[in-house]
Amino acid sequence: MKKIPPILAALAMTFALPAFAQDAAATEAAAPVSADVAYVFNTLLFLIGGFLVMWMAAGFSMLEAGLVRSKNVTVQLFKNISLFAIAGLMYWLIGYNLMYPSDDTWTIAGVIGTFFSPVSLDPVGAGDVAGGYSAGSDFFFQLMFCATTASIVSGTLAERIRLWPFMIFTVILTGLIYPIEASWQWGGGFLSEMGFSDFAGSTLVHATGGFAALAGAIVLGAREGKYRADGRMQPLPGSNLALATLGTFILWLGWFGFNGASQLAIGSVNDAADVSRIFVNTNMAASAGVIAAIALTHVLYGKIDLTMVLNGALAGLVSITAEPLFPSIFGSVLIGAVGGALAVLVVPVLDRLKIDDVVGAIPVHLVAGIWGTLIVPASNPDASFGAQIIGIVAIGVFTFVTSFAIWMVLKATMGIRVTPEAEITGLDVSEMGMEAYPDFIQAK
Amino acid sequence: MKKIPPILAALAMTFALPAFAQDAAATEAAAPVSADVAYVFNTLLFLIGGFLVMWMAAGFSMLEAGLVRSKNVTVQLFKNISLFAIAGLMYWLIGYNLMYPSDDTWTIAGVIGTFFSPVSLDPVGAGDVAGGYSAGSDFFFQLMFCATTASIVSGTLAERIRLWPFMIFTVILTGLIYPIEASWQWGGGFLSEMGFSDFAGSTLVHATGGFAALAGAIVLGAREGKYRADGRMQPLPGSNLALATLGTFILWLGWFGFNGASQLAIGSVNDAADVSRIFVNTNMAASAGVIAAIALTHVLYGKIDLTMVLNGALAGLVSITAEPLFPSIFGSVLIGAVGGALAVLVVPVLDRLKIDDVVGAIPVHLVAGIWGTLIVPASNPDASFGAQIIGIVAIGVFTFVTSFAIWMVLKATMGIRVTPEAEITGLDVSEMGMEAYPDFIQAK
Amino acid sequence: MKKIPPILAALAMTFALPAFAQDAAATEAAAPVSADVAYVFNTLLFLIGGFLVMWMAAGFSMLEAGLVRSKNVTVQLFKNISLFAIAGLMYWLIGYNLMYPSDDTWTIAGVIGTFFSPVSLDPVGAGDVAGGYSAGSDFFFQLMFCATTASIVSGTLAERIRLWPFMIFTVILTGLIYPIEASWQWGGGFLSEMGFSDFAGSTLVHATGGFAALAGAIVLGAREGKYRADGRMQPLPGSNLALATLGTFILWLGWFGFNGASQLAIGSVNDAADVSRIFVNTNMAASAGVIAAIALTHVLYGKIDLTMVLNGALAGLVSITAEPLFPSIFGSVLIGAVGGALAVLVVPVLDRLKIDDVVGAIPVHLVAGIWGTLIVPASNPDASFGAQIIGIVAIGVFTFVTSFAIWMVLKATMGIRVTPEAEITGLDVSEMGMEAYPDFIQAK
Repeated sequence: MKKIPPILAALAMTFALPAFAQDAAATEAAAPVSADVAYVFNTLLFLIGGFLVMWMAAGFSMLEAGLVRSKNVTVQLFKNISLFAIAGLMYWLIGYNLMYPSDDTWTIAGVIGTFFSPVSLDPVGAGDVAGGYSAGSDFFFQLMFCATTASIVSGTLAERIRLWPFMIFTVILTGLIYPIEASWQWGGGFLSEMGFSDFAGSTLVHATGGFAALAGAIVLGAREGKYRADGRMQPLPGSNLALATLGTFILWLGWFGFNGASQLAIGSVNDAADVSRIFVNTNMAASAGVIAAIALTHVLYGKIDLTMVLNGALAGLVSITAEPLFPSIFGSVLIGAVGGALAVLVVPVLDRLKIDDVVGAIPVHLVAGIWGTLIVPASNPDASFGAQIIGIVAIGVFTFVTSFAIWMVLKATMGIRVTPEAEITGLDVSEMGMEAYPDFIQAK
Repeated sequence: MKKIPPILAALAMTFALPAFAQDAAATEAAAPVSADVAYVFNTLLFLIGGFLVMWMAAGFSMLEAGLVRSKNVTVQLFKNISLFAIAGLMYWLIGYNLMYPSDDTWTIAGVIGTFFSPVSLDPVGAGDVAGGYSAGSDFFFQLMFCATTASIVSGTLAERIRLWPFMIFTVILTGLIYPIEASWQWGGGFLSEMGFSDFAGSTLVHATGGFAALAGAIVLGAREGKYRADGRMQPLPGSNLALATLGTFILWLGWFGFNGASQLAIGSVNDAADVSRIFVNTNMAASAGVIAAIALTHVLYGKIDLTMVLNGALAGLVSITAEPLFPSIFGSVLIGAVGGALAVLVVPVLDRLKIDDVVGAIPVHLVAGIWGTLIVPASNPDASFGAQIIGIVAIGVFTFVTSFAIWMVLKATMGIRVTPEAEITGLDVSEMGMEAYPDFIQAK
Repeated sequence: MKKIPPILAALAMTFALPAFAQDAAATEAAAPVSADVAYVFNTLLFLIGGFLVMWMAAGFSMLEAGLVRSKNVTVQLFKNISLFAIAGLMYWLIGYNLMYPSDDTWTIAGVIGTFFSPVSLDPVGAGDVAGGYSAGSDFFFQLMFCATTASIVSGTLAERIRLWPFMIFTVILTGLIYPIEASWQWGGGFLSEMGFSDFAGSTLVHATGGFAALAGAIVLGAREGKYRADGRMQPLPGSNLALATLGTFILWLGWFGFNGASQLAIGSVNDAADVSRIFVNTNMAASAGVIAAIALTHVLYGKIDLTMVLNGALAGLVSITAEPLFPSIFGSVLIGAVGGALAVLVVPVLDRLKIDDVVGAIPVHLVAGIWGTLIVPASNPDASFGAQIIGIVAIGVFTFVTSFAIWMVLKATMGIRVTPEAEITGLDVSEMGMEAYPDFIQAK
């Protein structure tokens, strides 16, 4: 499975330049960093990375608030802050313990961990120095990944979903679905045994969020008026592109924490150099995603579309997330450019399938996430295409099927969609009785 | 005073789990971090914490700009950036020296420090290594706390206060009131001698800002039309909930610096573990505040109120600020949830008293700040309820009385309130001649 | 050239207090930080500084989106995210290698480096420990400075420039102009040989951006209707002062990274103390710029102008950037206050010259940048007024002439300005076919 065909090996040469291969060699000095100092460095990395990823919650909020119509902004803001709070509580109560089972506490070995343990109520001891970082900083960092997964879902389903079913789904996603599938890799489960490779979560976080969003979009259906009877698509432009751009910049910033701190250590010369390379590659993939989206929208549509450009940046970031360390800069640029291109190209495909994704989270997080995961073996010699495909399929099937079932149950029991009248009036009034911009005269 | 009743001791057990009690033990490795390395770590903590707290000034700006009506936004933005600049200059000229008197420089021992000293014009030497951190980084960090105190006041008094009296009050608050009361605890004054405990300033910063705001709100009176002759309350909704949500996320992010760097050290395994726990507890209290506000507004009003939810997050954060280290996660969740609930419950009480607090700073910063300070002894064995009450009362009386007197003098001399006509037109035109959103057609 | 006249020496005494002069002495402890630990600290400084400067790209976006009229916001947002992506790619492909030639790779010694080298495709090795930091973290940090230079240009030229020529200019600015002039100082070129002193780039970054913007503004001409036939000036107020204020706060925050990490090291007690002082001085200069702008607009115009206050903060920041380490706090306050005053005073001068600078980037970045560079010798004994003037003139002439020529060529070939009709309709429709705020009814 780990055999790489010659052409891909050549590609890998370009992707992972010799210069880089020499990085790890001969750089560690005579006197290594002491265990205590490394502990503090590593803890600091988790804390800084964690607050940057926390900040991504604000990024999703602004991106989504900017891409929905003004009559649905309050609800979108509320969903984003409430899902972040829910993620915090659920990941503490169940998720963290479920995601990181110690060796003898799997309910089903390598597949499902333990749902409760005495430790799970306060997993935040100091750890020991041998572990290399404080347990609290790790918990903090990992929690933010769980929250990110939930953030991805909220944008796709905007403008027609009811509040409470969304919140219930978020409880299940952050307490069960994400921790279980993430345990397969990061908790030492069966995918990690198989050699699956997903550095910071192109699949474990982004595609997972995307699969859950896709299931929801299918069950929920498209917004009123989006796909017209005459087969044409009605554009429903976002109400505030300044907020959407702000959100994108926030996410771009937060991604340095997302990918950089996923190195899990910065307490040595090699780790510090690796984190630096991750920062660079992350930035270059995003830049390339922007340029790809500019070029492609210009060629395809004769004009540049700002929201596509923003999604190009995000798709570049998602693409590089599975392997931000091994590619050369050139490799990162290619990976990000393809991601940005995919974000543009998949939008009309979804529209043809009448899957209504309000903010483009499926192209950005699901499609670019899969792309980034698939391309890992081109630069990382320890990865194999077979294991990558198995990992994507396993996580995809589990997340999609589970999510689809939950959305169906929610639909059958409490209903997940507002009335057509409420959708026309706007969810801010129907669901919350509170406008986001009450002083401003707005088009109906 | 430090004797804890049995029931509270049991509560404290829940609050401060045994697991946590073992944190400090047996984790320090054989080779401690050297003094120089610890110095750099601690300095870095202050700098990172300081820039995160500086960022909170932007958070207050956005929160308040979003919660006032569109005709008062420019003034609110101006007040927030000018108070931050004033705080910087006043804390440098007077405050820092007044807040941290060396042992022999109190004007009144333990109560009032020295107003000027040659050092005060440049307190930012390198310090010595024994001190454990650079004096400049400490100055930077402490300055941001002074600015935060001033930020709290500006929201409450929005939409009817004149610019110049507000700025004069800010000069006095940041140059005298805050440094004096803060010196009682953090400068080694009488409250610290007594055993008062306020880790990062639930009372010293947040309640102090809240007391100053309360005094101002009473002297200033309610906005035109807020409390109608028929006894009913007229809602005056904020003009931009996207900005208000952004502001809340910014504050949430900044709070990791606010509480985390108040550990004052990260240059050892134990300190790094403690800072990590503080990050976790801070996040969990905020999350719990969100959920409490959602539940409570849903039950009380039959719908969820986004601004209440935002204030729930902030109240959770304020609540945990007095003691973010000792509580277990479960304890932090309880503390934050009560804080969030108080933020919701106190609003109608203030309205009944016709105290018009535009952004809810009094429930969030004053009431939750007192709550957080009072509950410290439930987890921290070194704290006592008696000392907590004395501290709150001393700081409350001093800040409220002083502030009240200053507002009365300002009212009697230059006047503190715009004319009713100006209030209807909006302060942006009357005070600054400059609209915040001139291109947008707005409701009058 | 380095002889300082007595009056300036006295000024320098005030600027650089004795207390500060003692900083460096006697603070380094017996056991210095080991090379490996220092490597990690220094790398961390670059990474943190780098992500803070990256965040400034969002600050420029929001500042400019807030200061243009609502019909030009989408284009302004697009320019800001695309220039950041372009800067990333160009600095990688050409710039970094051109800016930091090794000793034997200058094309013209000390003036123009090498345009390509095998290394330039992946300059991000781990470096060696002796170098003191990872090459990747340095690349990341330096890249952000290149992007900042480009950000400065976009605001001045807003509301009438066409997209593609702006992007082509950005390619040349970030790939050639900035790297070449920056190599003169930071790459070890002729200015550094001469003793020019520009700590974090008041001239190398800010004035350079300002000169390029000035050239563009002259070639492009003023906006339709800005300077009326009767000789009066038509104010064209910005559409969203909340965004402009947010942008200013973002820039203020990012500047701690910009100046602080330009110390290039934090792996020793002295470096940590220096970075701390830089943070403090940076903050105080910005605060003083705010207060100066408040006082001056109040005196000159009888009312406070928020956009002038925002620019006062930024001008204070630009002013201190050339030398944030040597001045005392008092010196920093003076430097920032003069900068803030200049930002206010230069605006009517530009208007008299009919140079239409939409956001005030020329007063803020060019004029305050020159001021900050000129005043360096007042605090830094190693600097001389002669060298400062030569540096400013050399960089100014090179950047202005080159930029002017490029703008002229672009004008003659593809045209750089939209039609008058498009300008009235707004560039969002004419250039991109996409409104920023489509749901809101806006004044024409």
